[in-house]
Amino acid sequence: MVKVPWQDVAALAQSLRDKSIDRIEPAVPKVPSSSELPLNTSKLPSQLLSPEESKITETCPEQLLKSLASGELSSVQVVTAFLRRAGIAQKLTNCVTEVLPEAAIARAKYLDEYLATNKKPIGPLHGLPISVKEHIGIKGLGLNGGFVGWFDRRAEEDAYIVELLQKAGCVLYVRTTQPQCLMHLETCNNLYGETVNPYNRTLTCGGSSGGEGALIGLKGSPMGIGTDIGGSIRSPAANCGVWGFRPTSYRLPMGGCTAPMGGQEQIVPVIGPLSLSLEGCHVFMKALIDQKPWLVEPSLLPFPWSYPPKESYLTKPDGTRKLKVAVLWSDNIVKPHPPVIRALKELTDKLKSSSEIELVDWVPYKHDVAWDIISSMYFGDGAKQDTEALALSGEPWLPLTNFIIKEQPNVKENTITEVWELTMQREKYRAEYAKLWNDTGKDGYPVDVILCPVGPGAAPPLGHARYWGYTSQWNLLDYPAMIFPVSQVDQELDKAEVGYQPLNDQDDWNYKLYSPDKYADAPVSLQLVGRRYEDEKVFEAMEFIQSIAGSLPLTPFR
Amino acid sequence: MVKVPWQDVAALAQSLRDKSIDRIEPAVPKVPSSSELPLNTSKLPSQLLSPEESKITETCPEQLLKSLASGELSSVQVVTAFLRRAGIAQKLTNCVTEVLPEAAIARAKYLDEYLATNKKPIGPLHGLPISVKEHIGIKGLGLNGGFVGWFDRRAEEDAYIVELLQKAGCVLYVRTTQPQCLMHLETCNNLYGETVNPYNRTLTCGGSSGGEGALIGLKGSPMGIGTDIGGSIRSPAANCGVWGFRPTSYRLPMGGCTAPMGGQEQIVPVIGPLSLSLEGCHVFMKALIDQKPWLVEPSLLPFPWSYPPKESYLTKPDGTRKLKVAVLWSDNIVKPHPPVIRALKELTDKLKSSSEIELVDWVPYKHDVAWDIISSMYFGDGAKQDTEALALSGEPWLPLTNFIIKEQPNVKENTITEVWELTMQREKYRAEYAKLWNDTGKDGYPVDVILCPVGPGAAPPLGHARYWGYTSQWNLLDYPAMIFPVSQVDQELDKAEVGYQPLNDQDDWNYKLYSPDKYADAPVSLQLVGRRYEDEKVFEAMEFIQSIAGSLPLTPFR
Repeated sequence: MVKVPWQDVAALAQSLRDKSIDRIEPAVPKVPSSSELPLNTSKLPSQLLSPEESKITETCPEQLLKSLASGELSSVQVVTAFLRRAGIAQKLTNCVTEVLPEAAIARAKYLDEYLATNKKPIGPLHGLPISVKEHIGIKGLGLNGGFVGWFDRRAEEDAYIVELLQKAGCVLYVRTTQPQCLMHLETCNNLYGETVNPYNRTLTCGGSSGGEGALIGLKGSPMGIGTDIGGSIRSPAANCGVWGFRPTSYRLPMGGCTAPMGGQEQIVPVIGPLSLSLEGCHVFMKALIDQKPWLVEPSLLPFPWSYPPKESYLTKPDGTRKLKVAVLWSDNIVKPHPPVIRALKELTDKLKSSSEIELVDWVPYKHDVAWDIISSMYFGDGAKQDTEALALSGEPWLPLTNFIIKEQPNVKENTITEVWELTMQREKYRAEYAKLWNDTGKDGYPVDVILCPVGPGAAPPLGHARYWGYTSQWNLLDYPAMIFPVSQVDQELDKAEVGYQPLNDQDDWNYKLYSPDKYADAPVSLQLVGRRYEDEKVFEAMEFIQSIAGSLPLTPFR
Repeated sequence: MVKVPWQDVAALAQSLRDKSIDRIEPAVPKVPSSSELPLNTSKLPSQLLSPEESKITETCPEQLLKSLASGELSSVQVVTAFLRRAGIAQKLTNCVTEVLPEAAIARAKYLDEYLATNKKPIGPLHGLPISVKEHIGIKGLGLNGGFVGWFDRRAEEDAYIVELLQKAGCVLYVRTTQPQCLMHLETCNNLYGETVNPYNRTLTCGGSSGGEGALIGLKGSPMGIGTDIGGSIRSPAANCGVWGFRPTSYRLPMGGCTAPMGGQEQIVPVIGPLSLSLEGCHVFMKALIDQKPWLVEPSLLPFPWSYPPKESYLTKPDGTRKLKVAVLWSDNIVKPHPPVIRALKELTDKLKSSSEIELVDWVPYKHDVAWDIISSMYFGDGAKQDTEALALSGEPWLPLTNFIIKEQPNVKENTITEVWELTMQREKYRAEYAKLWNDTGKDGYPVDVILCPVGPGAAPPLGHARYWGYTSQWNLLDYPAMIFPVSQVDQELDKAEVGYQPLNDQDDWNYKLYSPDKYADAPVSLQLVGRRYEDEKVFEAMEFIQSIAGSLPLTPFR
């Protein structure tokens, strides 16, 4: 082994990525240079692609699957269009670690031939291209997990989820960026640099599955795989205006993902979809769980995917179908910025029109304690393994790595006794939160879902995602949560609040961060949260809310 | 607080226990003194009780529940009979820590009045007395967990399982013994001394739920609550010839049990029933899970109790109903004694008569590795908390405490990094074992259940339960397992094997331990094991096996 400076490894990584993009055929259209790009690049790809390619890539995945299954569209057509759009997305937001044009086209051809020969699709995802966050292994390819020092690692096997998605018929064609340590709600690492927001290049795409967010936000992928231990599926989905779903733990297989702290179960990381549509998330869940992955990965729960449900999850004891939605306006620690409050208001105003929806307020319960517990458990080894992984190459610690490790007062190496003590605190908090839900049922039926912010604002300016509470809360509780687009920051409607008296330093910092111009065009998304294991109920409630809302986002994005 | 010698605390504990028994009305019949007792005391209680009391206490719980629900028997009658029989059982085997005559009779009266007034039972366990292992909290009562130093602890609340069982209608009337540290497959502690086997007083009743085993073995309880992290429900059920079920983790609530190492989740302890019948175990599971305990204790899985099943779990892809049973004759580390092999042979000979049963052999897979992993995880803190709990009173370490802590080469204080590494080993082993099951399905359907020994012999002589592999194996894998009685050691049929060549030192030790006279009259039980979460399937398979066998045990016990 030859020791080289980390910068050389980064240069190599980027050059290999660029070369992979150069191999896409037909060649990816030229994109204006950085200095000539508008802040909001979301409309550029369709201008650069052919009308046919734009149409394909702007079709929601469930419709694409129908066209692929019928042969109306060939997989080669679809994959080619998405490869080219992903190439453009990379040039606009820096969201890709590599594309796989040869393998993808070969696979697409195989699937097209399969359909022609067998007159039926190979599986429920027949021919659909799917994007994959880099730390989810693909056999023979690199698996760096965001560390320069891990650049030479290769996956010996496909991650189990990748194997299952391919069995369902998908095509792998692009891998996406993630932050250093996989533990930022943004996406920057020393190998590939920073991924930016498609709607405003000065804002973050979110993280850690930020490459997925930016890519799907630009419609460079119809569906992708992310992972989430504190908001890593949901923050990028929200920031980029796409759908994302964090399932309850142990429903989808994590086998074959790389990250430090393997074997850490105190706060369980989960894997899940980001997609252009709610139905895309649904198709993803169903295609995986229908394959009974628990027979191979025994940590998984043997719940079948019960959606659409035989019986509505929303049917009340009196036989009526009613959705009881609790609205969490603020966690009472950091108040969300005006656009988030407006999105909540606009959506709840719509919901009020339905006699089948009951709205109540959700009073947050000690979300600061929740953060104390979870931030003590994230790096139970005092970030020893992360520190070692960083030290391998000598790459610098990025500011948000410092933030989540060195600036958190609770991060230290815990003894096993301390870990057990924290585990008991976690369980106690979970039981107290369960009691909150149970107590809402005194009128006969408890709250079904909580509607809440995804963060203390829309996508923050790069480097400023320093409050995790609106997402990590549900990781601590292990609740399923859906992210969906609602609105977009509006210069007129979303003026900064004047004279607000912050609750504390964090709140003050967040309050001062906001001005409408800084957040121009940022998507505003919301989160729908269910009780532990009620993943399917979240889908049913979400579909119902979408039907009442008419469309989501409420008005199309600029 | 006054410091007193641990012996004084033990004397107090025993005196309080004896006084509680003295308060039973009518008084518990006099029992012959130790020196006059036969080795096999199993037939004594019915000789000491009235015919009516004998009849009640020898009725299986499902039948008692019918009689209680119809009013044919009053709860006061039933509880009185069991209180008196429990008092006798205590004098024969030392299995009780206290009886609760006043509270039990008051509760029974209340239930009798409820039935008279409402013309219906209060719940599915209406009026049934249930015994409770001491470390499962009952509000206001002591909670020592087997430690002299914890004798003064009181439960602030009922354990959640106790609350739920009472909601279902049961009556609490007796609490039962457990070993020091709750980590022996026998039952001896410094507070109450040693609990012995009802069928042979020189043998162990098993442990750690050994008080339950001995009590139910003597029909002093129709149904009891045990806990199991390495065999603690199953060893006493097997040794005492009763039924016992270890569910998969997180199906029944553990909240409110005391033990060192709270918050330890690496090897999850479970709670479950011991009972006079299979149906008793079923009633227990159903009464609890039907109350949706996961809404209150969020670690629990929201599986409904799906038994009897709407569709048979045993229906094969071709539509036939067939049970595929794999027989594990030996784990290839320690060969079971002749009575166990005979029981396996006798039962499988019966099963061969059914065309609906397919028998195959199960080849054990690295059960020594399984023990290395689990024994490294039992005391992840190097038994620090246990050591501290013992030091509180200065009580001596018992030999089997030394065995499971000091004599195990893998017990040490692990760093959190080491715990994570062990967790990965555990998951790898679980995945490899899952593959074994999957691979048996190459003919279209995999093995449904594994039939196997519960230990390397029947109940061993006191102090000799030093091999956990036949039970701890399924804890590591987190498989549900049912214990059922099959036979009894027979002086003619169960001669020691001559000329056996032991596989290793452990096997040699176990081989030399056996002679039929030493094990005279010991019940011989077997274990039926299912895949993780297939608890209901184990019940269905067991019921089917019981129906083919005709009765279990195959012949009534002496």
